[in-house]
Amino acid sequence: MNTIETTLSIVALGGVNEIGKNMYVLRYGDDIIVIDCGSKFPDESLLGIDLIIPDISYLLENHDKIRALIVTHGHEDHIGGIPYILKQLNIPIYATRLTLGLIEVKLKEHGLLGSTDLFTINAESTLVFGTIEISFFRTNHSIPDCVGVVFNTPEGTVVHTGDFKFDLTPVNDEYPDLHRMADIGSNGVLALLSESTNAERPGFTPSEQLVGANIEDAFIKAEQKIFISTFASNVHRLQQVIDAAEKTDRKIALLGRSMVNVVSIAHELGYLNIPDNMLIEPSDVKAYEPHRIVVLCTGSQGEPMAALSRLASSDHRQLEVLSGDTVILASTPIPGNERNVARIVDNLFQLKAKVIYGSASITGMHVSGHASQEELKLMLSLMKPQYFIPIHGEFRMLHQHRLLAESVGVDPDNIFIVNNGDVVDIINHQASQRRKITTGNTLVDGLGIGDVGTIVLRDRKLLSEDGILIVVVTLSKMEGKILSGPDVISRGFVYVRESEALLNEVRQITVQTIHKLQEKNITQWDFYKQMIKEAVGNYLFSHTKRRPIILPIIIQV
Amino acid sequence: MNTIETTLSIVALGGVNEIGKNMYVLRYGDDIIVIDCGSKFPDESLLGIDLIIPDISYLLENHDKIRALIVTHGHEDHIGGIPYILKQLNIPIYATRLTLGLIEVKLKEHGLLGSTDLFTINAESTLVFGTIEISFFRTNHSIPDCVGVVFNTPEGTVVHTGDFKFDLTPVNDEYPDLHRMADIGSNGVLALLSESTNAERPGFTPSEQLVGANIEDAFIKAEQKIFISTFASNVHRLQQVIDAAEKTDRKIALLGRSMVNVVSIAHELGYLNIPDNMLIEPSDVKAYEPHRIVVLCTGSQGEPMAALSRLASSDHRQLEVLSGDTVILASTPIPGNERNVARIVDNLFQLKAKVIYGSASITGMHVSGHASQEELKLMLSLMKPQYFIPIHGEFRMLHQHRLLAESVGVDPDNIFIVNNGDVVDIINHQASQRRKITTGNTLVDGLGIGDVGTIVLRDRKLLSEDGILIVVVTLSKMEGKILSGPDVISRGFVYVRESEALLNEVRQITVQTIHKLQEKNITQWDFYKQMIKEAVGNYLFSHTKRRPIILPIIIQV
Repeated sequence: MNTIETTLSIVALGGVNEIGKNMYVLRYGDDIIVIDCGSKFPDESLLGIDLIIPDISYLLENHDKIRALIVTHGHEDHIGGIPYILKQLNIPIYATRLTLGLIEVKLKEHGLLGSTDLFTINAESTLVFGTIEISFFRTNHSIPDCVGVVFNTPEGTVVHTGDFKFDLTPVNDEYPDLHRMADIGSNGVLALLSESTNAERPGFTPSEQLVGANIEDAFIKAEQKIFISTFASNVHRLQQVIDAAEKTDRKIALLGRSMVNVVSIAHELGYLNIPDNMLIEPSDVKAYEPHRIVVLCTGSQGEPMAALSRLASSDHRQLEVLSGDTVILASTPIPGNERNVARIVDNLFQLKAKVIYGSASITGMHVSGHASQEELKLMLSLMKPQYFIPIHGEFRMLHQHRLLAESVGVDPDNIFIVNNGDVVDIINHQASQRRKITTGNTLVDGLGIGDVGTIVLRDRKLLSEDGILIVVVTLSKMEGKILSGPDVISRGFVYVRESEALLNEVRQITVQTIHKLQEKNITQWDFYKQMIKEAVGNYLFSHTKRRPIILPIIIQV
Repeated sequence: MNTIETTLSIVALGGVNEIGKNMYVLRYGDDIIVIDCGSKFPDESLLGIDLIIPDISYLLENHDKIRALIVTHGHEDHIGGIPYILKQLNIPIYATRLTLGLIEVKLKEHGLLGSTDLFTINAESTLVFGTIEISFFRTNHSIPDCVGVVFNTPEGTVVHTGDFKFDLTPVNDEYPDLHRMADIGSNGVLALLSESTNAERPGFTPSEQLVGANIEDAFIKAEQKIFISTFASNVHRLQQVIDAAEKTDRKIALLGRSMVNVVSIAHELGYLNIPDNMLIEPSDVKAYEPHRIVVLCTGSQGEPMAALSRLASSDHRQLEVLSGDTVILASTPIPGNERNVARIVDNLFQLKAKVIYGSASITGMHVSGHASQEELKLMLSLMKPQYFIPIHGEFRMLHQHRLLAESVGVDPDNIFIVNNGDVVDIINHQASQRRKITTGNTLVDGLGIGDVGTIVLRDRKLLSEDGILIVVVTLSKMEGKILSGPDVISRGFVYVRESEALLNEVRQITVQTIHKLQEKNITQWDFYKQMIKEAVGNYLFSHTKRRPIILPIIIQV
């Protein structure tokens, strides 16, 4: 046997030093298992980009060795990349029922249903792919039907937690399987990959049930219509809204495509208990007394096109928020979304609504779905891993998770904080991180996957700051006489009407530059372009302190 | 006397329904007093814009009536607009010593020193401008030398609080003058304008002294160099850093232009007590043992060009953060800055620094400079105003401040929540809000003040999302024959090399469009451009789902 055949390798294609686009690879010899396939939203520096997915070059190169994609749960940062990846690579997918239901919605939207094999697993399933045996354990999170994954390999056992918290009083969900986790730990864990989202947060994340009690209180107090907005995928939260509506004798109307989709699938698969006749169409809301109505809607993160944002700006075609209505934001803004959420609250107050918003520690309308520090220590203590790789988190979260692992006795030398692409190889129970594979961000823009890169983005950035100025001049092929122009056209730079003198000067500078070069008998047009660019650029910067992209176009006829 | 002569008018030119660019106008008859002249930073929708200042059309129209600009304190949102406004309008400025010192730094930077008269006032000053008598009262805030302003007019007394908190154990600062405020209230306040920044926050803002104790604790525990970052203008905080450095026998090096400026002015004017030989040059840091050093730097909001950000990315030309150094972020990220701050913390952990960051309620390294709900109620209770106009805040803050005013007995009908430009007129003690004046945002971009507007910004937005595609074609004047082109040039759209087929198709569509129009004997070039734009735009959208700006250029020779 050569080395590669007896090496256990673990690598993140996405999900470390970032939040989102989780994708991990476990390889033993010729068997590759992929865990999760997420997407993430671009930050404001990636202008015009719709979505980011992992770069799967490594998988494409080794496509013949890939046995399965195991998906831990149905959130976008774990399933969002699937349709894009499937267009390049056919992998059979294994996931629990609800997760698979949500994946199917995605595949349908992309016209990919039937393009790959989908297998339903549950926490008791066992799968064998060549040298790797896979089993699962139940966890809780802010969506039902989550699992952690156990990989039994000839080298030892690797555990991947997925996203989790320890909700010991879960809503409509199974309990976290502490005993199974304890068994896995007792049998020996070579390496643990555990999520780090809340590794900066002290304590123990509260149970989702606390939110239910607060929702019910707010429903009892509300005198007119109630609008409540939360992540559609938080099926537990939806159940609590339904329960509170039932207790206060209100009907529920759903707003927002993802809300309608999730409720429909979760209901169909038995993850939501909805009393008969409770759901009504938004168009039927006006047929009921205001105090008989709950509107359950998307947009709790302030998304400008979502239902809540439209309602707040009185721009929804079916429903309106009126003076005295109650609006509950059952979520906490993700960093970057604060301003959009604040705008919505401003607008709702303008409509004289009662708004329950702000810090969840005050409103009690949200709890996290992720394990806080004490729960992360609990997971580490149950698993007692020899090696530990904190995953799912930006560097400071991985760093804090490392400190937690050290505090419960993991050998500091056995903790690997990796970048996407760093490979942890384990041979004869000795782990090391010395090699890297190619990975990174694949940018999705419209229909293009990966066709926008650094140059295009750099240009978009320059264009966004100071616009573009185009100088067009037509020269005769023979004598180089100016036949037409220079014409100056700009977009995103200045108001043309108020800047005539400036643009006239640009025309003159262009003519002067051309004449000077012609006097020197220079004939390379690229050089003309370069000189016009510099002369015009310098003039504009000194007069406006702006640097538009200067695009000289020289036409010869 | 006609109406205008006996009307007291109050109007915000900036500062309501927003945070920043505070500017208020009080007018009685022919006497206009301006209060504050701030700037604010643009949000991400205002692409390329450097700064926003108030639109002062109203002041320009009434320049002969303006008696004074009164500045309540030296923060950017109260003084940042001054240099830009002075270029259009000469107004004498009245402010306290430190405030005036900070204004002078600005005027110097803009080459405007000496262009207007500057008058130093203190909390005991009295000014008379025609029918208006002005006096002041001491307040506390996160910068020393703050005042509230009292306007005695023939119609009654108007009070403008400026920014304030009630710090009853201030650092190096005078106490808030409760007795003077009580006197003002006893003498009768017709209208109160009070700041609303923290109107959503329950309780009483802690004293700045609490931060000092925590800084000192952290300094005692730190084993190597300490880097501490805070707003340069928070002179109280700087004093506490100096005090802690003195107690722990450390020298202080200053990093960042605004830190050096503020320390120099505050020291010179006696607002900072700095022991002899405590300040050292950054270049001398290496001459000392690490545990003898404090580096006091700018960049606590994650500003990418500021000292802290450079230090965190090992990109500072003089100093570096080493393993075991302590870095303290003595601030709370302003909404919108969270991601930049998080990047810095990630980088500092990469350098193996100890980082004190995150929620101020846990670290104790920051307190707000603004009054919380109980303090706002205290101000309202002291002033007992007949009319109340909450200022300085986004709508939800003004709304919460209104509720606080109602809770301490202000008549709900006497509370005016206004927009910038809404005029509150008071005649015979009866206030009403029925008219508006022109105001809004004036955008500063490079050297241009107000020359970038909605069309330019809309183009920048389109350019930032999908770039621009230029189609150039040269036609003969006589027969309309295509002499050159169509050439296709793009910026910020796609990688040209990977999209040759797409761009070829654009060329063909252009030729076809031209031929079709020529067959119909159409000769208006604008129509040609429009048709090319539509044909190319539709083709690109259907093939890429992107909408670059399409710019057809037709040249005739």
